[in-house]
Amino acid sequence: MDLNAIYLVSDSIGETADVVIRSALFQFETENYQLKKYSYVQTTEEIDEICAKAADDDHAMIFYTFVKKEMADYMKDRIEKAGLIGVDIYSPILTGLGQLFQLPAKEKPGINRQLNADYFNRVEAIEFSVKYDDGRDPRGIEKADIILIGVSRTSKTPLSIYLANKNVKVANIPLFPESKPPKEIFSIAPERIIGLVNSPKKLNEVRKERLKTLGLPPSASYAGMERILEELEYADQIMKQIGCEIIDVSNKAIEETADHILHYMDVMNINRKQL
Amino acid sequence: MDLNAIYLVSDSIGETADVVIRSALFQFETENYQLKKYSYVQTTEEIDEICAKAADDDHAMIFYTFVKKEMADYMKDRIEKAGLIGVDIYSPILTGLGQLFQLPAKEKPGINRQLNADYFNRVEAIEFSVKYDDGRDPRGIEKADIILIGVSRTSKTPLSIYLANKNVKVANIPLFPESKPPKEIFSIAPERIIGLVNSPKKLNEVRKERLKTLGLPPSASYAGMERILEELEYADQIMKQIGCEIIDVSNKAIEETADHILHYMDVMNINRKQL
Repeated sequence: MDLNAIYLVSDSIGETADVVIRSALFQFETENYQLKKYSYVQTTEEIDEICAKAADDDHAMIFYTFVKKEMADYMKDRIEKAGLIGVDIYSPILTGLGQLFQLPAKEKPGINRQLNADYFNRVEAIEFSVKYDDGRDPRGIEKADIILIGVSRTSKTPLSIYLANKNVKVANIPLFPESKPPKEIFSIAPERIIGLVNSPKKLNEVRKERLKTLGLPPSASYAGMERILEELEYADQIMKQIGCEIIDVSNKAIEETADHILHYMDVMNINRKQL
Repeated sequence: MDLNAIYLVSDSIGETADVVIRSALFQFETENYQLKKYSYVQTTEEIDEICAKAADDDHAMIFYTFVKKEMADYMKDRIEKAGLIGVDIYSPILTGLGQLFQLPAKEKPGINRQLNADYFNRVEAIEFSVKYDDGRDPRGIEKADIILIGVSRTSKTPLSIYLANKNVKVANIPLFPESKPPKEIFSIAPERIIGLVNSPKKLNEVRKERLKTLGLPPSASYAGMERILEELEYADQIMKQIGCEIIDVSNKAIEETADHILHYMDVMNINRKQL
C-alpha cells in the first residue's frame, strides 16, 4: 500500500501546524504516513506547485496555516479544484479571535518569532536553567523563580528545561546522602522550592536503564533498592525540614508535572520573568 | 472596557490549544484579553459549568480540543445554545486524518504524553544537551548527533535545547582565542559540526545587554568591537580549518536557525536518535 502523504504548508516555519498534527497523529494506530513540510510559502505559484504534487500522490491530504486570508482562500480553492482534501487550521481561529476583539488580524507571517521582549525572556530563562542545572552553582538558588530538589532520576533536568520554555527560571539541586545540599535552600522562601519524589520501583527501573546507557552493570548499588530507599529517606528529611511542596513524578509525563508546578506558582503568586 | 475572556478547554493538559492560540494571538494588536485554561475536562457536567461561566462573561470565546468526538459535539451544542462563539480546533483535523487513513481515531486523551520510546528519546536528548552544553565535557563531541561551535552569544545554548526537543543530541563548544578547542572537533566528520556566526554589530548589542544583566559595565572589552572582531576572526579560522557548515544567526530567531539545521541534517543524512 502506498504511504499516505501529509502535507504541512505554512507561510512561516510551520511549527504550529507541526505541533498540532503530530499531536493528532497519536490518535491513529498507523505509521503509514509521510510528513511533507513546506515552509515560507508566500506566493500563489508555490501553492499551485504543492497542490499539483499532492494531486500526483495516491493518498494525500493538505493541512495549512496561512495568516493571510487571501492565501488561505486561494489554497482552499486550489484544493477543491484538484479534488484533494485539506484542512485550514488557522482561519477559523483567526476569524474567531477577530470577532472577539473586533479587530482585523495583522496578517504578518512569522510575527510570533519576532525578537521581542517575551522571546528574549524565554531565551534567558533557558540559558539560566541550563547554567544552574544539577547544582552547578548555588548562586542560582537565590536568582531562580523555582528551585527543584530531588534524588537522581526524578526528572529535574527535563522539567527545568520545560519550565524554562514557559519563561520560568529554574535551578535544580541533586540530593544525595554523601553531600550536604547548599545552605541557601534552607534560607530562601520555602514556597519557591519543589521537592520531587519517585517511587522506589520506578527509580530502580530508570536507574538500571541509565546504567545500561552508561555501559555499566545494572547491579551497581546506584540502582539497588537499598541505596534507593536510603536516598529517598534522606531526601524526605530535607524536604520536611524545608517544608516545601512535594510532587510524586512516578508515572507522570514531564508536561504533567510542569503543569502542576505552573498552577502551584499561580496559586502561590510566584512571579516569572523576575530576576 | 471589559477584558475579553478566551477559554481554552481540553480533555488533556491543553498544551496543543495553548500553542495554537498563543501563536494566533500574535496576529492581533491587543493585550486586552485573559486566557482561562481548563484542563482534563472529562465530563459533560464540566462542559456545562464552563459554558455557564463563559455566558456570564461579557466577551468570551471558547476554543476546545477534545479527542472524543462525543465531547466535542456536546461542547458545540452547548456553545450554540448559550449563544457563545466557539472554535473546535481538533475535530476537523481528526476527521481529516481519519478520512486519509480510513481508520477510526483512538479517542484517548493524553495519549501524546504517554511514556513511550519517543518520549524517552526526547528526554534523553535534553539531558544530553544540557550535560554537554558550553564545552563542559569534550567526550560529548563523539556521542552527539550535532556539534555547535561559535563565539559567545551566537545562541549555542538555546539552539541546543530547541534541537534536543526535536530528538537531536547536541554538544556545544565555545570558541575564544585564549583557549584551544578540544581536539575532537578536528577528528570527527565535519558534517556533524555547525559553525555559528553573528554580525559584529549584533554581538556588540547582545553582549552589552549581557553585561548589564550580570551587573557589569557595558564598556568591558567583552562587548567591545576590537575584541569581537578578534574572536570572529579566530572562529572563522577554526571553522575553515574544519570545513564545516556555517550559519549566520544575526536577526534569526532560534526556531529559524534550528529549522535550517534540521533541514541540513536531512540532506546530509545525519540521523537523530542514535547514540
